[in-house]
This record gives sequence, C-alpha cells and structure tokens, in this order.
Amino acid sequence: MPPEVGHTPTPQDQDDLRIDAGDLHAWVVAVLCGLQVQPAHARSAARALVAADVQAIDSHGVARLPAYVERLRRGTMAVEGQPQVVADRGATALVDGRNLIGHAVAELAMDEAVARARLHGVGWVGARSSNHFGIAGYYARRAADAGLVGLCGTNAGARVAPAGAGRPFFGTNPFALAAPTARGPMLVVDMATSAVATGKLELASRAGTSVPRGWVVDAEGRDSTDPQALAYGGWMLPLGSFSHLSAHKGYALGLVIEVLSALLAGGPYGPGVGNLVFTSGDGPARVSHFFGAIDPASFGSAAGFAAAVAALTEDLRALPPTDPNQPVMTPGEQEWRSEQERRAHGIPIEPDVLDALSRTADEVAVPLPATARRW
Amino acid sequence: MPPEVGHTPTPQDQDDLRIDAGDLHAWVVAVLCGLQVQPAHARSAARALVAADVQAIDSHGVARLPAYVERLRRGTMAVEGQPQVVADRGATALVDGRNLIGHAVAELAMDEAVARARLHGVGWVGARSSNHFGIAGYYARRAADAGLVGLCGTNAGARVAPAGAGRPFFGTNPFALAAPTARGPMLVVDMATSAVATGKLELASRAGTSVPRGWVVDAEGRDSTDPQALAYGGWMLPLGSFSHLSAHKGYALGLVIEVLSALLAGGPYGPGVGNLVFTSGDGPARVSHFFGAIDPASFGSAAGFAAAVAALTEDLRALPPTDPNQPVMTPGEQEWRSEQERRAHGIPIEPDVLDALSRTADEVAVPLPATARRW
Repeated sequence: MPPEVGHTPTPQDQDDLRIDAGDLHAWVVAVLCGLQVQPAHARSAARALVAADVQAIDSHGVARLPAYVERLRRGTMAVEGQPQVVADRGATALVDGRNLIGHAVAELAMDEAVARARLHGVGWVGARSSNHFGIAGYYARRAADAGLVGLCGTNAGARVAPAGAGRPFFGTNPFALAAPTARGPMLVVDMATSAVATGKLELASRAGTSVPRGWVVDAEGRDSTDPQALAYGGWMLPLGSFSHLSAHKGYALGLVIEVLSALLAGGPYGPGVGNLVFTSGDGPARVSHFFGAIDPASFGSAAGFAAAVAALTEDLRALPPTDPNQPVMTPGEQEWRSEQERRAHGIPIEPDVLDALSRTADEVAVPLPATARRW
Repeated sequence: MPPEVGHTPTPQDQDDLRIDAGDLHAWVVAVLCGLQVQPAHARSAARALVAADVQAIDSHGVARLPAYVERLRRGTMAVEGQPQVVADRGATALVDGRNLIGHAVAELAMDEAVARARLHGVGWVGARSSNHFGIAGYYARRAADAGLVGLCGTNAGARVAPAGAGRPFFGTNPFALAAPTARGPMLVVDMATSAVATGKLELASRAGTSVPRGWVVDAEGRDSTDPQALAYGGWMLPLGSFSHLSAHKGYALGLVIEVLSALLAGGPYGPGVGNLVFTSGDGPARVSHFFGAIDPASFGSAAGFAAAVAALTEDLRALPPTDPNQPVMTPGEQEWRSEQERRAHGIPIEPDVLDALSRTADEVAVPLPATARRW
C-alpha cells in the first residue's frame, strides 16, 4: 500500500492500516493466480491465510505469502496437476500433494477425511509431498464446521531439539483439534509442540525484546534469551523446556506428530523435511500432514455432543482465576473474539509485513487492495 | 510376603525382593477372582498391571491393586455383566463398561478398534462407565503388537488446574501412542498431560524430598515444592507449568483428551469423574477412555512403515547428546530395557508396596507368590 500522496507515513499511521478480509482474500488469489497457481488452489490458500489473519494469528496469515511467492518464482513449488488420492481403504486415504501449494493439498485431504467419517464414523487421511499449509487449526475447524471433531497435524523443517539432544531434529510439528459447539466461542486447540511457536520469536525480534529462558538455546546448546538465536545456529526447545519440567513430553509430542504425518504417509522425516519459514530451500519441501475426522453421531447424539462441548467450555471459563483480572480462557476463544472484530472492522497489518506485501504486490504487479484504510 | 523365620528384615533385604512376572500375574488373578471378578476380567487386569511392573512403571502396576480391591469390597466397582458395544458405525464403536474393572473394558475396546482398523483402515472406539485402567501405553502397545499404530487416552479424577485457574478441573488425562517397529526398542509414548505424573509425586513423598517448582501449587495456588501438596488441598500444574513456558498448551492437551474420551463417549467430564488414586470414592468412578488404531498398510507397506519407525528412532538415539553421559533416549526405550531385565530376573517390589500387598493378601486369603525371592 503506497502512502498517500504528500503524506509521510508514521509508524502510528501504519499501525492503523486495516484491510478488509474479503479484499485481502481477493488480493491473495490474484497474486497466486498471477504466478500460475490454479484458481481453486489459490482460493484454498487465501481461505487458510485470511482465516489466520482474522483470528489474529498474524504469523501464519498473509505474512507468509512472500515466502510462498518466492518458492513459486523459483519453481520449487509446483502449480500443475492436482493433489490425488493414491491409496484408499474406505475410512482411510493417502493423498499425494504433487508438491502443490500446501493449503490446497490440506483442504482436499481434510474434505476426504470428513466424507469418510460420514460413511464410517471416522476418517483418517495422510498427505505427503505437500508444502507449508498455514494454521493446522483451519483444517480442524473445517471438520468442526461440518459437525465433526477435526484433528490435524503436520511436520515442518527441523528446528526443535529432542530433549537431551544437541541438534535440532523435528519441526515445531503443530497439532490441532476442533469440535462443534452448541453456542459461544468455538473450541479450537492449535499448538506447536515446541515450547513456543516460531511466531512468538518473530514478535520478540520485531519488538527488540529478549525472551524467557526455556524457549531457545544457542548454537552450543546453552540457554539463550535472544529471540534471534535460530539465525545464529541455535534451536528451539520442546514443550516443557527443561528436563525437570518434562521436556521429554514435548519431545514425545513432536515425535507423535512426525509418526502420524511423515511415517504413515511415507514422506521424509525430521531433517529430511524442507524448511519453508526461514529459507525457501532449493528443492521440494516434502511436508507431510495428517487429518482425522470423527463423527460424534457415531457414539450418540450430535446435538448432545455439541451441548456438552458448550457446557464444558462454559464450566472452564467460570472457574475462579488465579488473577482476578485474567479470566480463564478456553482454546480458540481469543481467536474467535478477534474474528468477530476483524471481520467487521478489517485486519490490521504490521508495518514490516505491509512493506513485504507491498514489494510482493510490485513484483507480481497486483496492487494491494484499494480499500486498505486507516481506522 | 512374610519375613523368613528368625530373620528380622531390613529395608535393604526388602529392596532386594523380586517376584517373578508370571507368578505375580497369577497372584493378581487369584486376588481378583477371590473378590468375584470374572476370570477373563481378572486376567485383563493382571496383564495390564504386570505390564506396568515389568516396564518399571511401578506407580501403575500392582501398587494400584489395593485401591481396586477396596472398590470391589465396597461394591463401588461391578463384577457382573460384560462390557458391551452399544453403538456401532463400522469403523467406530462405543463401549459401555458397566462399571467393571477398567482393564477388562479397555482391552475389549482396543481389540474392537484393532478389528475395525483391519476392515476399514482405521478404528476409533470410545468407552464410558469404566474405571482406572492402569497405563494407557499398555493398550496402545496392544495395537502395535498387532501391527497397527495404537492411540489411547483416558480422563481421570480432577487434580490438574487449567492454566490461570485457581481450582483443579481435569485429571492427569494421559495419552499414549505406540507403533510397530522393525527392530530395536519399541516406540511407546505414554504421558500424563500434567507437568509430571502422579507417580513422581508419590516417589518424592516416599523419599522425603522436595519437588521442583512447577509441578504443584498449594491450596491457595501458590508455587509449592511439597510432594504432598495435594493431600493439603493443593493441585497439579499442566505440562508447561508456567504461563511463560506455555502452560496453556498442557491445559489444552488435557482438554483434548477430555473431549476425545468423555465428550465423545457421553460420560461425565472434569470434576464429574471419580478419583480412584487418592480416595476410593463412594460411587462409580465413571471414567471414559478412547482407543484408536490405524493400519499402516492402508497407506503403503506395513513393513516399510515398521522399517521407518526403526530408522527414525535409531536416528534420534544417534543424535549428539548435550550431556555426553546421557545418550538421547526414545520414548519407550527405557521401559523396553526394563522389560528385558525384569522378565528375566523378576520384579523388585518397594517395601511399602510389599507391605500393602501383604495386607491385601491377608484380607483375601491369597498368599503372595512363594517364589518371591532375594536377588
């Protein structure tokens, strides 16, 4: 978004810039189609990216688009062909992503899981030869929106060291579960199995602040508080952070996601996976995912299940908080509230993200939405 | 095991007492049958308990038997009837445990999941109206021994506070995954979603040592290093322990297990679940579980999958350790090594556990194995 003529933008002005969700979606589609991505695949990617942005999971929204664009321009991500079911056992399927953009692969794979769950009660789909797919919670919620419990996980480029290991091996290997609810905020768990998500390091880097001990270590494996430790050869710690706080459990969770994604789908594991976030890499990323859908109607009443989800989450939010000013939250609640606000009032874009998107807009000659506006 | 005539046992003597795994199994069966548990159910319980003991997961082996015995004597756990499939959708089923001993319910439910996975590629089974079932890893491994990926989880009596809450709500809600491997130590993840398992607090209590900050809080929610904090109204913290180390993720994991067990199966959740470990409770525990089985042959070659599991775990164990004296371990490796040793040389029984088992043996008039011996 170029500044207004005759106006030198200040950081404050830029902080106030918001883009309408629908306009942002259309822009992402136009950018990707300009790089020969098929329109249906571009729409899948735009849905997943804008879903992250409206939920204020800014690290996994359009901020990731420039990395996808670079891969497309270098030809390390494919644009031709379709993700395809290459094995089918009724309730299970394996999808080959043909190195296409990950969101298109993942949407198709989750839709396969949902269709199979409707027939058999549960559906389980693996995907290989895919790419970065945005937020895992988007796909889990896709199942929940269809009335099912959705499960999703993915491997990723190596940057987390197993407990006790002096070298990164797994990615942040996120996991998501979403469940339909009769009322109130949706229930969506979406978590990296590392102590923190990469996005938290990026936020601290931008803010120029240090991070707590237990998030990262330096290249020698020593505790570090530098959010840029990874740029200097350091790595991330698994959930639990320290051995006395059960870092072996976070390590085990990353391994669980790796088994369910890469090993079942027959893709590469650990350091064999391309790293999309920090570098674009020279070849296919070969990311693997998994998608599960469970039909609550298989076990009883679907309406009863959704009512129980609502009651459980209400009970949790009604618990006495340890800090009276911080009510107990349920997973997905904050994102659900952001979504109400941002769908109504537009998506604020960070200044450095806006700069990057402006460069992308120039490169592919697709101007940013004219509706980007100050609020 | 009464002491030898004319010999006053010392703690050192008792530490050296070992019981043969097969003899221990037979004794557990005899004790339970003496309390009118049906022989097939008693054998299920004995298999699961002795499996924990041979793997050196001592907190979940025969040490739990006195609590089961108390429930059986008080009539709060049923002995008549069979766990039954009450809903069936092909790849999914719901098992009603009829308040029978949990291990019998869980074995049947996992076997249902395995049978369904063989037909449909994946099987998913919920169970309600069950009881404490021992180690989740036993059931996951049962699927792995059949060549499938096994998943298992259970809710439990409330003793873990959600992140930011001043009251316990979930149980330790453990989760397990096991996968067949072509060679070497089995791959079994089995972890409470709390910062530590209850057993670690019990070990510290017995040893009279304090525990690290981040495991428990006192009745006012303040950090505590007292392993007996729960006895004084305190509670456990979720994995992550502190907000800056992502305790909200451990909280979310406990919630995931609760949704997949209680909510899908239609059982009570959170504080509605009876607490077996610390008190026997006055009514049915109404525990819910879930069991998943995924056939790797649905996605490709089963042999290829088992070879990949072996290669992945070998790669992990070959990583350079941060401490040269502590090689990187894979989940289940230590338990697998213990199993080799204890199946060959017997199961050592802690002195206080032996005392409790001796009392149980007296109560039901089934003497402890005569083969209990000093090593």
